[in-house]
Amino acid sequence: MTDLPPMDFLLRLADAADRQTLPRFRRHGTVDAKEGRYFDPVTEADREAERAIRDLLGAEFPHHAILGEEFGASGEGPYTWVIDPVDGTRSFICGIPLWGTLIGLNVEGRAELGLLSQPYLGERFSAGPQGAFLNGPGGQRRLATRDTRALADATLFTTAPELFAGPAKERFGELSPRVRMSRYGADCYAFAMLADGHVDLCVETGLKPYDIVALIPIVEKAGGVISTWDGGRPEAGGDILAAATPELHAAALEALRR
Amino acid sequence: MTDLPPMDFLLRLADAADRQTLPRFRRHGTVDAKEGRYFDPVTEADREAERAIRDLLGAEFPHHAILGEEFGASGEGPYTWVIDPVDGTRSFICGIPLWGTLIGLNVEGRAELGLLSQPYLGERFSAGPQGAFLNGPGGQRRLATRDTRALADATLFTTAPELFAGPAKERFGELSPRVRMSRYGADCYAFAMLADGHVDLCVETGLKPYDIVALIPIVEKAGGVISTWDGGRPEAGGDILAAATPELHAAALEALRR
Repeated sequence: MTDLPPMDFLLRLADAADRQTLPRFRRHGTVDAKEGRYFDPVTEADREAERAIRDLLGAEFPHHAILGEEFGASGEGPYTWVIDPVDGTRSFICGIPLWGTLIGLNVEGRAELGLLSQPYLGERFSAGPQGAFLNGPGGQRRLATRDTRALADATLFTTAPELFAGPAKERFGELSPRVRMSRYGADCYAFAMLADGHVDLCVETGLKPYDIVALIPIVEKAGGVISTWDGGRPEAGGDILAAATPELHAAALEALRR
Repeated sequence: MTDLPPMDFLLRLADAADRQTLPRFRRHGTVDAKEGRYFDPVTEADREAERAIRDLLGAEFPHHAILGEEFGASGEGPYTWVIDPVDGTRSFICGIPLWGTLIGLNVEGRAELGLLSQPYLGERFSAGPQGAFLNGPGGQRRLATRDTRALADATLFTTAPELFAGPAKERFGELSPRVRMSRYGADCYAFAMLADGHVDLCVETGLKPYDIVALIPIVEKAGGVISTWDGGRPEAGGDILAAATPELHAAALEALRR
């Protein structure tokens, strides 16, 4: 068994990030009269949240590597923290509380711990060796995907249909007409709803590692399956498919292969 | 000045609806062993919330007409309450807290009072003669659209691109490539974000009166403009355009006319 940091530490990282993101949510951009520069709340939230997380990581785990959306890669070794301080920046900009701070830990390249924090909703989706959990306004409960096995019964989420181009567009076009319902625009939050049993498929293209690493244990420990569109491990990002059950994952993978 | 019911009364209607909707949000469908029938949380939420609202209306304003999504039209006269107990049923089904209970009042066919309640977020967007307001976790504040005047600077929301067909698809196709960013899937909540200054355009097709009446005063009292795609009053629904400013509304209307 790998020696993993406790989930409490991830919650402390999320607390530090929330203090930077939440006060900037639904604030309008302004021009600073003194400095004459444009103040962009989401950019500031992104940078300051990642800085806060990196500060804590540097103090507690100075020998761990970090890959963050804002400040890139630093360090090396078996442990790599993978961070997206604000996933869903377009939701953030539009006042929609479906963005999240994503904090994941890869051990030897495999996602072992994951946390999604949505501070406006007061929700944290987390996963580690003990399982996957939602801590929210209603207390704590275990996350579990639902038992959807057929494409015809499945609800599919994707960020935006226009993100698909070329072969990805053709492959997505084989899958999307076969599901019961398609929905758009929830970014990381769609994966959380899959883990909580409300959504059956998440299909994304062109993801970066920091878009997905934190979500991998959340999906897997809730009973779901997550991979690339070719069935490989999802830690490196790219074209990603998450499904509520192994049967549904196989059916979606088959459709995407055509 | 028309004699309007006080906003407190609309808040009481929303309280009654919230008691029916919120406990059913994120509950899974189940088969009742005794009755042998399938229990569908969103259908029950829809029906029970409208019933609760109708009960209060019947007790307080027995001579007012009602148009509801679930139970149709009843009564007649200058005052008509227009109700969608759960707008955004697909969000509700998927666990996404962007659905809302919509309660509007038309007087002589014109929307004068409006309320959107999102109980999971603890938010109410309301509008009447005093203006438009958000009551939420952070207290009360006045709603105001932002000063976006050009399509090239605008963020556009629509429920789903596949809802457009025929001439509506062509007309939307003239508008959508000219905006800065398009987003999908927020239903009524997108109009609330427009009123709160985070979104600039909402473009929808095939709306019913109960999808839009409550939102008209919220947009108008926040400084926005809302009409059909041909510039007419929006109370009857149909193809609807809401914009943050009169200038942006005119530019979007012009694009939709082509």
